[in-house]
Amino acid sequence: MEFTAQQIADFLHGTVFGNPSASVGDISKIEEGKPGTLTFLSNPKYTPHIYSTEASIVLVNNDFEPEGEIKATLIKVENAYNALASLLNLVEQSKPQKRGIDSLAAISPSAKIGEFAYVGAYAVIGDNVQIGDGAKIYPQAYIGDNVKIGDNVSIYAGAKIYQDCVIGNNVTIHSGTVVGADGFGFAPDDKGVYHKIPQIGNVLIEDDVEIGANSCIDRATMGSTIIRRGVKIDNLIQIAHNVEVGKNTVIAAQSGIAGSTKIGEGCVLGGQVGVSGHLHIADGSKFGAQSGVQSSVKIPNQALQGSPVFSYMGFMKSTSIFQKLPELQKKINELEKEIERLKIKD
Amino acid sequence: MEFTAQQIADFLHGTVFGNPSASVGDISKIEEGKPGTLTFLSNPKYTPHIYSTEASIVLVNNDFEPEGEIKATLIKVENAYNALASLLNLVEQSKPQKRGIDSLAAISPSAKIGEFAYVGAYAVIGDNVQIGDGAKIYPQAYIGDNVKIGDNVSIYAGAKIYQDCVIGNNVTIHSGTVVGADGFGFAPDDKGVYHKIPQIGNVLIEDDVEIGANSCIDRATMGSTIIRRGVKIDNLIQIAHNVEVGKNTVIAAQSGIAGSTKIGEGCVLGGQVGVSGHLHIADGSKFGAQSGVQSSVKIPNQALQGSPVFSYMGFMKSTSIFQKLPELQKKINELEKEIERLKIKD
Amino acid sequence: MEFTAQQIADFLHGTVFGNPSASVGDISKIEEGKPGTLTFLSNPKYTPHIYSTEASIVLVNNDFEPEGEIKATLIKVENAYNALASLLNLVEQSKPQKRGIDSLAAISPSAKIGEFAYVGAYAVIGDNVQIGDGAKIYPQAYIGDNVKIGDNVSIYAGAKIYQDCVIGNNVTIHSGTVVGADGFGFAPDDKGVYHKIPQIGNVLIEDDVEIGANSCIDRATMGSTIIRRGVKIDNLIQIAHNVEVGKNTVIAAQSGIAGSTKIGEGCVLGGQVGVSGHLHIADGSKFGAQSGVQSSVKIPNQALQGSPVFSYMGFMKSTSIFQKLPELQKKINELEKEIERLKIKD
Repeated sequence: MEFTAQQIADFLHGTVFGNPSASVGDISKIEEGKPGTLTFLSNPKYTPHIYSTEASIVLVNNDFEPEGEIKATLIKVENAYNALASLLNLVEQSKPQKRGIDSLAAISPSAKIGEFAYVGAYAVIGDNVQIGDGAKIYPQAYIGDNVKIGDNVSIYAGAKIYQDCVIGNNVTIHSGTVVGADGFGFAPDDKGVYHKIPQIGNVLIEDDVEIGANSCIDRATMGSTIIRRGVKIDNLIQIAHNVEVGKNTVIAAQSGIAGSTKIGEGCVLGGQVGVSGHLHIADGSKFGAQSGVQSSVKIPNQALQGSPVFSYMGFMKSTSIFQKLPELQKKINELEKEIERLKIKD
Repeated sequence: MEFTAQQIADFLHGTVFGNPSASVGDISKIEEGKPGTLTFLSNPKYTPHIYSTEASIVLVNNDFEPEGEIKATLIKVENAYNALASLLNLVEQSKPQKRGIDSLAAISPSAKIGEFAYVGAYAVIGDNVQIGDGAKIYPQAYIGDNVKIGDNVSIYAGAKIYQDCVIGNNVTIHSGTVVGADGFGFAPDDKGVYHKIPQIGNVLIEDDVEIGANSCIDRATMGSTIIRRGVKIDNLIQIAHNVEVGKNTVIAAQSGIAGSTKIGEGCVLGGQVGVSGHLHIADGSKFGAQSGVQSSVKIPNQALQGSPVFSYMGFMKSTSIFQKLPELQKKINELEKEIERLKIKD
Repeated sequence: MEFTAQQIADFLHGTVFGNPSASVGDISKIEEGKPGTLTFLSNPKYTPHIYSTEASIVLVNNDFEPEGEIKATLIKVENAYNALASLLNLVEQSKPQKRGIDSLAAISPSAKIGEFAYVGAYAVIGDNVQIGDGAKIYPQAYIGDNVKIGDNVSIYAGAKIYQDCVIGNNVTIHSGTVVGADGFGFAPDDKGVYHKIPQIGNVLIEDDVEIGANSCIDRATMGSTIIRRGVKIDNLIQIAHNVEVGKNTVIAAQSGIAGSTKIGEGCVLGGQVGVSGHLHIADGSKFGAQSGVQSSVKIPNQALQGSPVFSYMGFMKSTSIFQKLPELQKKINELEKEIERLKIKD
C-alpha cells in the first residue's frame, strides 16, 4: 500500500516541504533509505545522512533547518520520533493477530480464559488460572497454578510464570523470561552448609509493564516482589526477591537489582548496572551503564555513575585523570626530587 | 490455621515475651506486618520497624533488647532468621505436591523413572534417561539422552538438560536454566575464521545443589564441568566449560566464571562478578559485587573487590580517593607552582 | 575402539616420539589423564602436567622440547590444539544423529522442511516457515511465522525464533536463546510515561554463526539486526536492535551491545563487556573483560580495556597505581608539608 507525503502529513498534523505527491510503501533507516520509503531524523548524530539518503520522504522536527540540498520531501512535525512511532503503530496494527485456543494447549479445567484470547500450541495453563480478555499466551508458555493475568496481556513463546503470581492489564512479557522463580535465600549453618529459606511470596506486576527476553523476576520470600505501573524492563535483567520497582522506571539490559531494594519512580538504569540489596533509591535517579550502587540514594533526580556511583560529572573527571595516573605519579616523583634539591640547597 | 505464640515458641525452642495467647495465621515482612501475622527481626537495618509493626508476633534473637515500647509479642530464639526458615518450611511442606506422569509428556521407552516422581505436560525425557524417586520434572522441561537424575530433584518448567549430564540427589534447577550446552571453544585459522572445537564432555552436578533461573552451565570439552555438593547458584549466571565450583560455594546473580577455572570451597561471589579462565581460587574467597578476578587467588579466606580485585579495605580507600582525583590533581599543580616559586627565589 | 599412536600420527600428519604401539580409546585433560587416553598440551600454563600425566599419548606442538622425563608417548604436530580439534570432530561425527519429524511436533501446513531434517517433540513451526536440508530443530524449539532457516542448521531445545527472522546455513543456536524479540524502544511523554515504538524489522543471521545458550538478539525497529558470517556469540549475551556484528567477530559470555552500534570484523569482546549505542567499532578491536565502551573506536586492531576503555597497557598501569592511591595521597600531603617548611625557612 502506498501513501503520499500529503496524506502522511495530514495524518501526523505535519507540514510538507517538497513534493506533496511523493509516495512511499515502506519505512527505512535514514542511512539505508531507498526510493519509495519513508524515514526520519531525530538523533542529531544522523543529520549528515539526510543530505544523501535515497528515501523519498523524511520526517524531521519543526526546528530542523537544512544546511545543504536535500533530495527527499520533508514532513515537519513537532516530534519526528513520536511521529515515526505513530506510523509504526499503524503498520503493527495492520498485521494479522493470533486468536483462539490451540487444541494442543494443556489447559486445566479449572482455568478461566477471557474472550478473544489466544493460547498457542504446547502452552500449559495451570489450575485456577485466570486470563483476561484479548490476552495472548504464545506457544510453549507456562502459566502456573493460581496465576492471574489481566486483559490484553502478551506472554511470548516459552515465557514461564510460576504459581500465584499476579499480572495486570496491557503487560508484555517476552520469550524466555521467568517470573516467580524462588528468591535466592539460604542461611549457612556452623559448618558452612547452606539451608534453603522457602520463598512463599509471589510477584505482582502492575498494568502497562513490558519485560524483555530472558529476564528473571524472583518471587518474594514473603509478600510480593512488585513491578509498578508503566515500568519497562529490557533483556537479561535480574530482579531479586522482595524488590519494588517504582512507576515508569526504565531498566536497560543486563542490569540487576539485589533483594529487598526499592527503586523509586521515573528512574533510568543504563545497561549492566548493579544495585545492592536493602537500599532505597530516590525518584528520578539516573545511573550510567555499568554503575554499581552500594548505598541508598536519598536526593532525587541525580545523574550518577561509577562503581561505586557518585556524580556523573565527577565520574567523567575522575576517569579522565585515572587514565593519566602514570603521568601524575611521575610528576609527584619529580616534585619530590625538586624538594630534595631545594632542601639540600637550603 | 492459627497458632499461638506459646505453640510457636515451643516448636522453635524459644521464649515468649508478652502475650502467649497472641495468635497468627500468616507470615509477613516487619515493615508490612499486619495484625494476625508473625514477622521476624534479623538484619539490624530493620530494627526501627519493630517499634511500629502491626504484626502480632515478632521472632527476635536472644540478645535483642528493646529500646522502646513494642506492641507485638516477642519470641526470643537463638537465631531469628533460622527460626523463620523453619516456619517457612512448615508452610511450604503443607502445600499440595505435584505427582504422577502427565499423559502429554514425551518419554522414551528406554527411560527409567523412579517411584512417586512427577513428569509434567510437554516435558521430553530422552533415551536411556534415569530419573530418581520423588523427582519432579515440570512441564516443558527437556532431559536429553543418557542423562542421570537423582532422588528428590526438581527441574522446573522449561529447564533444559543436554545429553549425558549427571545430576545428584536433592538438586533444584529453576526455569530457563540450560545445563550442558556446548562450551565456547573455537580455534582461529590464519584467515581469522573460527573453527569449532567439539565439546564431548558433560556436566556433573553433585547433591544438594540449587541453581536459579536462566543460568548456563556449559558441558566440558573433555571430562566434566563440575558443581560440587551444596553449591548455590543464583539467576543468569555463566559457568563455562571445564570449570569446577567447590563445595558450599555461593554465587550471586549475573556472575560469570570463564573456562577451566577452579573455584574453592565455601567461596562467596557477589553479583555481576567475573572470573577469568584457567585460574585457581582459594577456599573461602569472598568477592564483592562487580569484581573482576584476573589472576589466581592463593591465600584463602580473603575479602577482595575491584576490577582487577585487591583487598576489600584497599578498594574502599582507593575508590574514595578516586572520587577526589580532580582535587588531588589540582593540589599537585599548586605544589608544582609553589616549587617553581621557591626555585626562583632560591 | 582403540587407536595406536602411529595410526593417530598418520591421521594428523604428525611424528611419534616414544612407543608407536601405545594405544588409546578415549580423550582426557592433561591434569586428569588416565592410561589408555590421549591428551594434548597447548597452553603453556599446563606444561608442568606433562611430566606427571598418566595419559598414554600426548599431542604437542613441533617446537615442544621436554625438560624432564615424560612417561607418555608424544605425537608432535604443527598445532596441538587444532590436532585435538580434528580428533574431537571424529568422535563427534561418530555419534548417532537425530533425524525425522516427530509426530508430536506442531508444524503449519504451509511450512516447508528440507530433506534429512529433524524436528523434535513439541517443537512449533509456524506459517510459511522454510527450513533447509539436514537442519535439526530440537524439542520445544519455536520457529515463528515466515522464518527462513538454511541447511545444516541446529536449533537446540527450547530456543525461540520470532517471526520473519532469517538464518543462513550451518548456524547453531543453543537452548534458551531468543532471536527476534522486540528491541527496547520506548519514547517518554511529558508526564514521564513511556510509549512503545513498535519493532517491525527482523534479525538476519548469516552463515557459519554459532550462538550459545540464553542469549538475546533483538529484532530491528526497521530493517535488520545483522550477525555477519562466522560470528561466534557465547551465552547470556545481549545484542540490541539494529546492531550489526561484523564477520568473524567473537563475543564472550554476558557481554552486551546497545542499539544501532556497528561492531567491525574480527573483533574480540571479553566477558561482561558493555558497548554503548550508536557507535562504530573498528575492525580487529579487542576489549578486555568487563570493559565499557562509551565512544566509537576509529583505529583498528587496538587492545583496549577499562570502563571507559583506553589502551590495555595504560589500563594495566593505571589500575596498578589505583591500588596504591592511599600511598600517593599520603606522599602528596607530605610534599605539601615539606613545601610549607621550605617556605617558612625561606
